[in-house]
Amino acid sequence: MSQKPDFDNMACPLPLMDHDTIQLAHGAGGRLSADLIEKLILPRFSSEELDRLEDQAVLDLPPGKLAFSTDTFVVSPIFFPGGDIGDLAINGTVNDVAMSGAEVVALSVGFVLEEGLPMADFHRILCSMEKAAAKAGVRIVTGDTKVVGHGACDKIFINTSGIGVIPSHLNLDSRLISPGDKILLSGSLADHGMAVMTAREELSFQAPLMSDSAALNGMIRKILEVCPNIKTMRDPTRGGVATTLNEFAAGSNTGIRLEGDRVPVLPDVMGACEILGIDPLYVANEGKLIAVVPEQDADAVLQVMREDELGNDAVILGEVVAEHPGMVTLLTALGTERIVDMPIGEQLPRIC
Amino acid sequence: MSQKPDFDNMACPLPLMDHDTIQLAHGAGGRLSADLIEKLILPRFSSEELDRLEDQAVLDLPPGKLAFSTDTFVVSPIFFPGGDIGDLAINGTVNDVAMSGAEVVALSVGFVLEEGLPMADFHRILCSMEKAAAKAGVRIVTGDTKVVGHGACDKIFINTSGIGVIPSHLNLDSRLISPGDKILLSGSLADHGMAVMTAREELSFQAPLMSDSAALNGMIRKILEVCPNIKTMRDPTRGGVATTLNEFAAGSNTGIRLEGDRVPVLPDVMGACEILGIDPLYVANEGKLIAVVPEQDADAVLQVMREDELGNDAVILGEVVAEHPGMVTLLTALGTERIVDMPIGEQLPRIC
Repeated sequence: MSQKPDFDNMACPLPLMDHDTIQLAHGAGGRLSADLIEKLILPRFSSEELDRLEDQAVLDLPPGKLAFSTDTFVVSPIFFPGGDIGDLAINGTVNDVAMSGAEVVALSVGFVLEEGLPMADFHRILCSMEKAAAKAGVRIVTGDTKVVGHGACDKIFINTSGIGVIPSHLNLDSRLISPGDKILLSGSLADHGMAVMTAREELSFQAPLMSDSAALNGMIRKILEVCPNIKTMRDPTRGGVATTLNEFAAGSNTGIRLEGDRVPVLPDVMGACEILGIDPLYVANEGKLIAVVPEQDADAVLQVMREDELGNDAVILGEVVAEHPGMVTLLTALGTERIVDMPIGEQLPRIC
Repeated sequence: MSQKPDFDNMACPLPLMDHDTIQLAHGAGGRLSADLIEKLILPRFSSEELDRLEDQAVLDLPPGKLAFSTDTFVVSPIFFPGGDIGDLAINGTVNDVAMSGAEVVALSVGFVLEEGLPMADFHRILCSMEKAAAKAGVRIVTGDTKVVGHGACDKIFINTSGIGVIPSHLNLDSRLISPGDKILLSGSLADHGMAVMTAREELSFQAPLMSDSAALNGMIRKILEVCPNIKTMRDPTRGGVATTLNEFAAGSNTGIRLEGDRVPVLPDVMGACEILGIDPLYVANEGKLIAVVPEQDADAVLQVMREDELGNDAVILGEVVAEHPGMVTLLTALGTERIVDMPIGEQLPRIC
């Protein structure tokens, strides 16, 4: 029986470097830049394209439409239970590309490093990115590294941009959502946001809350096999499920009605939300997806989600309705219906 | 007679916003985020793909190989004579993609904004990006905006990633450089680096030194018409011409010999370099390219460069030789030959 590689236990020893911390010269394009790239970065990200060290990657792509996405990650703290800024930067962009129905082909990585960042921290992040990219089956093909002076950025920011190819028979578009469609959610809410928040505030729980940071492209591949007529998918990150669904409702001019008793939240996460006075519907997730599917496909998609290791707790969260177009509502356990509004501003800054 | 649009005098009035400065909530994914995107960003960058406000753009591309590049811009100060961080972010990535021979198709933009950044400054940068994108003929198709607290970044960082399509008959590769090839440079050196440096240090000259920030994809299109067998092109940014040529020499295992009396440097730029003790060969350029071409094509490429408004001062800077493989040398006016080494570290931090 073939085994999956054990990504979590990949060896990743820190190479011997001339400096223990990042220096301004590591971003200057000269010898120290070359040293950082060759000793620390390339061993983690090696790909045919990246190894050429040109200013751009050249790729042969299969036919289809191209999906293209970008995201900059500024999460604080940079290490948190269940992940770090590195795997988040890989998973976040893999997910953004894959939600279009695309097979994710390649990522770019752009670092902004603060002078003085411990080399061991940067290396730990690189190792985490390597593992996340291997798990997701994507290559890093081009990159850029800048260094700014102490105090000019907070440790490290990472931009990832991604490209993928969408098979020509797929046409996902959130404007196609129509009454009768079912809203599926692949698992529990608010794990990432509350993990980062409690790590930042140093709140203690019996066990630390864990981020759900994960790449969903494998699950998406299986969903598309059973439901090629899927309307749309999105990962509810910043702003949470409430924001994603409000955008769907506004864009398709339909209403969305959620069943409140089906909103899956882990007990410890719910506890933290209650202590901090935060509604889990508004909290960022980094390993969950919302799918809007025709009613007749809902059960098949739910089953595929639940069979995936990242979707065991998937639910049919609600449905698209003709009433209250542009608005999201939630049926409470008491039988009342309340509006789930668009959030006004920041509940949790620098969550991703 | 048809006229070119007057990009430099495009009207760009600041819309009425609820806040005079960037707030944390502008990056939170809620209503204030939507407000910033709809009122300030989309009017400048509107494209069919971006207006859909999905997490990824979907593009139909013509056939060919795909070029993909990324760059994060952290220049300080963010405004300088001849440009700002906005046009630099557009031109820099357009150039990185175009140097592969690609027609640049689309860009992504990722902002990191510091809480408290004046809205008028951000708007000025957006207007500058709009003009640069229009001049270069590229669309901005997807983006991301993050806000970090005061002191967690220095005003604004911009990542741009770009994609382009390389016609299948082209095969640029710096490893193909061989003895006899000519090294062409499209104009004067060190303009960008010295403009930023003198602006930062508030050095006074009779007239301010101007950055050469410009998109070179138009010139490249014409070069490829007369020289489809061109070996390679690159824009000598960080590390300057010296770094680019050292990388060419190392990658192709050839020597490169420059004619010192042909190195074009504007008199005021040379003056600033002398005051600051900086060799213009090591200073960043943002609107110049180096082309390595077969000897028989050199004159035709030189003529095409000089006919372009961005290449009036183009020169044949030197040639590829079989001697001293991996090494770049410069024949001085005195007839001696000195080594042009790879720079060790940072001469000018945060130049781009």
